[in-house]
Amino acid sequence: MKLSKLFTKTKKQISQEEKSINAQLLERAGFISKEMAGVYNYLPLGLLMLKKVENIIREEINAIGGQEVLMPTLTSIESYKITKRDKIDVLFKTKLHTGSEFVLNQSHEEVVTPLVQRYANSYKDLPVYVYQIQNKFRNEPRAKSGLLRGREFIMKDLYSFHQDEKDFNEYYEKAKEVYKKIFKRLGYGDKTYITYASGGTFSKYSHEFQTLCQTGEDEIYLCEKCKIAVNKEIIDEQNKCPECGNDKLVQKKAIEVGNIFPLKTKFSESFKLTYKDKDGKDKPVIMGCYGIGLSRQIGTIVELFHDEDGMILPESVAPFKYHIVQLTNNNKQLTEIIKNLGEENCLIDDREVSAGQKFADADLMGMPYRVVISAKTLEKDSVEIKKRDEYKSELLKIDNLKNF
Amino acid sequence: MKLSKLFTKTKKQISQEEKSINAQLLERAGFISKEMAGVYNYLPLGLLMLKKVENIIREEINAIGGQEVLMPTLTSIESYKITKRDKIDVLFKTKLHTGSEFVLNQSHEEVVTPLVQRYANSYKDLPVYVYQIQNKFRNEPRAKSGLLRGREFIMKDLYSFHQDEKDFNEYYEKAKEVYKKIFKRLGYGDKTYITYASGGTFSKYSHEFQTLCQTGEDEIYLCEKCKIAVNKEIIDEQNKCPECGNDKLVQKKAIEVGNIFPLKTKFSESFKLTYKDKDGKDKPVIMGCYGIGLSRQIGTIVELFHDEDGMILPESVAPFKYHIVQLTNNNKQLTEIIKNLGEENCLIDDREVSAGQKFADADLMGMPYRVVISAKTLEKDSVEIKKRDEYKSELLKIDNLKNF
Repeated sequence: MKLSKLFTKTKKQISQEEKSINAQLLERAGFISKEMAGVYNYLPLGLLMLKKVENIIREEINAIGGQEVLMPTLTSIESYKITKRDKIDVLFKTKLHTGSEFVLNQSHEEVVTPLVQRYANSYKDLPVYVYQIQNKFRNEPRAKSGLLRGREFIMKDLYSFHQDEKDFNEYYEKAKEVYKKIFKRLGYGDKTYITYASGGTFSKYSHEFQTLCQTGEDEIYLCEKCKIAVNKEIIDEQNKCPECGNDKLVQKKAIEVGNIFPLKTKFSESFKLTYKDKDGKDKPVIMGCYGIGLSRQIGTIVELFHDEDGMILPESVAPFKYHIVQLTNNNKQLTEIIKNLGEENCLIDDREVSAGQKFADADLMGMPYRVVISAKTLEKDSVEIKKRDEYKSELLKIDNLKNF
Repeated sequence: MKLSKLFTKTKKQISQEEKSINAQLLERAGFISKEMAGVYNYLPLGLLMLKKVENIIREEINAIGGQEVLMPTLTSIESYKITKRDKIDVLFKTKLHTGSEFVLNQSHEEVVTPLVQRYANSYKDLPVYVYQIQNKFRNEPRAKSGLLRGREFIMKDLYSFHQDEKDFNEYYEKAKEVYKKIFKRLGYGDKTYITYASGGTFSKYSHEFQTLCQTGEDEIYLCEKCKIAVNKEIIDEQNKCPECGNDKLVQKKAIEVGNIFPLKTKFSESFKLTYKDKDGKDKPVIMGCYGIGLSRQIGTIVELFHDEDGMILPESVAPFKYHIVQLTNNNKQLTEIIKNLGEENCLIDDREVSAGQKFADADLMGMPYRVVISAKTLEKDSVEIKKRDEYKSELLKIDNLKNF
């Protein structure tokens, strides 16, 4: 992609009212643009990054049998009355001309439970794993953390349906492992801890995935032996490590990057979702839900990986692997270089601006490798290549770029 | 994909209140499931079909320079006051806890105009072509046509921004050609006519793409010489072919599958979107918009291509090319057959149900080719292959399937 063709531009400064580092850098780099607090436009580079995150999550959820669907935003308030969630604070509501009231879904238990009920009625139909990657809406009173807390945001939500607790527990453990793998691929597996959190009225615990980060909104208590944490919300009742009993837990700031929740029979009972077992007896379906906010991952990546000059994006999610700083117009060699690096991997700064601005924008935009092409490097049939987070650059022969 | 693993099931009948053929067949085949009138869940097969439609549209819009973004659903009512569209009937509205009112976007001129304004201020920045594939919300009083008229539906909306009418007109003609190409690839180019329609208060005409179909909600007047039509809404003022003057226009039923609209300066004036020309003078930006409803294309495909047994999907959009009717458990040969046909092309009916039900479901689901594998065909190292819309089947050697 050529920067000269992109309709967005980098900015040295944006509105003072945007306090969060992630929104500041993403907006300055032209990845996103604010619509209102907690609601953002994804611009071409931001959308490419979102798709990379999406593909990693989709691959991993497919690997544990997830079947992808797409559920709607609008659902009748009647479904929320059934689960007694029609009065919760975060619901956005709207109305038809007839006056019937609708909810903008903030999560999809009220949709997926009746949906699965239409197809799964016997033990032969279970288990079922259904997920989507879709917009969620939450009427947040404060939405000041950029992509970390949205009023409108993109989420992967997976729901599982089982015959019994044993089958559910096995899948729940599988989901834990796949979540670890996702955060590893996104670049912060080593900073992310399974954290015991409240299980609501129907389970003892749920589990969050908390990524250590100074600017995180959450507070967790970490067992450094087990690499397991306890969320502040339950630390009074659970002040020791739930795995080894260690009571020297260390307080840390963190971002909740994912959560998994044993729903047990909460929603299946509300909607009377039962199945016939082998003996023809009706039994309630056991459910679990598993969420990851995609936009929040992008916010997290930027909070974790940046310096004073801009973002430092992991290769797995960067819109492009190479940021080409083009300081010459030798088209023949340029074409060869881009071919060797793979066109789809290259963001090419071919703008008519100063070399200084090109270097500054490369740092701001944060692609993993900066590749400088100048008359000087071409004299040696070479390019100058530098990792975004290292100082040292090296000259590499154009012919050798193929195997880089 | 194995049918035995899919959580959805085909149904012989669905609710009587669903009148439209497209929703009936798609729901019976397990492609969609109704949430409420005009709001549907896309199930795994339906989502695969949606992605195929999406990819065709994306490829073609990228080919005319479209830059993909993702704009939000929620926008402040204040933006709609600026364009005086805050009172239009089809708007869904919602509120923050503070009482501030928001619109669920039914189209995105109120978002994209200020967005482009943040980046394009000089003639050097123009033209700009921005599009997205995203949800739209319309508070339709009647939504009885399945996927043809949704309250929540998926749309590709492209917006173009130009220095002058000449540049706009050139792009508008390019968009016409690319739209023709899209409908051709979707399978109904030959049934689709450019149709003159009202241009609103700011242009003489807009142009619709109308696909001839008995169950369409629109009425058009066709010039059979020019393959051009006039929409009923303007037939009183334009009762001759706008191209050749022919006054023997033929009345037809049709579905509006796309529309393109010269917005001229309507929105750029509202938002004061101007640019500095070469002489430093401020001039208003000329805009166009170009829409295609993705969910409506799926509805159209089914309305056009079906028989009494089910859907007959064009290869370009069918979730799978082959529907494998597996009537034997010879795993070795099965594996070879699927490998030869390409696993990603095969929907495999491995369920433990009668052959009769498998044949009926293959017809209902409408994949382009039915491939029967039975002890009898395997005796001859063959499979029986039949096009969905033909009666004749033929035996093909397993070895030859690679080149099919």
